[in-house]
Amino acid sequence: MQQTLVDEINTVRATNITWHEGHVARVHREKLLNQRGATLWFTGLSGSGKSTVAFTLEHQLMERGHLAYVLDGDNIRHGLNKNLGFSATDRVENIRRIGEVAKLYADTAIISITSFISPYRADREIARTIHSEGGLPFLEIYLSTSLSVCEQRDPKGLYKKARAGQIKNFTGIDDPYESPDAPEMSLDTAILTPPECAQLIIGELKRRGILPQ
Amino acid sequence: MQQTLVDEINTVRATNITWHEGHVARVHREKLLNQRGATLWFTGLSGSGKSTVAFTLEHQLMERGHLAYVLDGDNIRHGLNKNLGFSATDRVENIRRIGEVAKLYADTAIISITSFISPYRADREIARTIHSEGGLPFLEIYLSTSLSVCEQRDPKGLYKKARAGQIKNFTGIDDPYESPDAPEMSLDTAILTPPECAQLIIGELKRRGILPQ
Repeated sequence: MQQTLVDEINTVRATNITWHEGHVARVHREKLLNQRGATLWFTGLSGSGKSTVAFTLEHQLMERGHLAYVLDGDNIRHGLNKNLGFSATDRVENIRRIGEVAKLYADTAIISITSFISPYRADREIARTIHSEGGLPFLEIYLSTSLSVCEQRDPKGLYKKARAGQIKNFTGIDDPYESPDAPEMSLDTAILTPPECAQLIIGELKRRGILPQ
Repeated sequence: MQQTLVDEINTVRATNITWHEGHVARVHREKLLNQRGATLWFTGLSGSGKSTVAFTLEHQLMERGHLAYVLDGDNIRHGLNKNLGFSATDRVENIRRIGEVAKLYADTAIISITSFISPYRADREIARTIHSEGGLPFLEIYLSTSLSVCEQRDPKGLYKKARAGQIKNFTGIDDPYESPDAPEMSLDTAILTPPECAQLIIGELKRRGILPQ
């Protein structure tokens, strides 16, 4: 055995460090990070501003010394959910897995921001239930920007393709978007800029004790 | 609109906060947490000490002000992977999903500790590849405690049941355990206590620049 390893072991033996049979409690991580873990579940049409608000919020939280993480198509669709397609079954499983990962993040004391259209009430309800079972905060944040505004913006040209029939089952065109009945927040980016939305969300997180005052 | 919201929006409008189109870079989270994200992939027989070393390490890191999180049967099998059984296909998918979640944690700048037997080299190689593709640190940590010691300990009485034929396909008895060819660390809990193992891992994390000196 290398001498440095022997030294390190002797250091441990000289101190009174105990064994641990169980997880560190969430409250200790929350104290370390000075925030509570929570899931901010964004939902809204393509072009409603989900990604821009999510990233703007992530940056604003970081600037204040808080740890947030955006779960989106970039890091989920090409990773955890790369073996899922767009069938009804896969669509439900897609949202379920994102909900489970967001729950792990909330338990880790992180504020995760999920940025997916997630057009169906029943799917979003699964994600909410996963959190309520674990006693973890879940905020459904509805980007309520109207279809006409989203279609006018059409930043990726997807609405145009959907109208031309080049994309099938496009949410808002030939597939339904089921708006939330009782979202924790509702934000219209036709009225509010992304930094304004982020600021309102931070205010809400303070009111709920997820961020300190 | 409520007056408080109007005030908050006016506050935002009065400042010069910008929009953000992309993710916060990992390096900023790493700076905030004063650590690098990394995955510590524990592997070893049932009874080899994976859980106890994982929890002891998690506690030691927390005491030093570092953020770690243990992914194990408790939070994975009943959540993200609850729709997986024990077929060959499901076994591979089980490890793949854990690898993908660990990768997300590493990208979030967290040190995740995965505590699963993960008996097959090919499965562990999938998890390693997922990380190397993303340029994220992956340390395979082999709990090399021998079968005879593990069976003697038999903390959950599982070896006894496996020997009696009450449990089928039990790793080490009637299912193989493929030991790692080149693990980043190898620790035998017949020789080292869990706090000693944790201390050695912390030393290795410092040497690799994952933890500050």
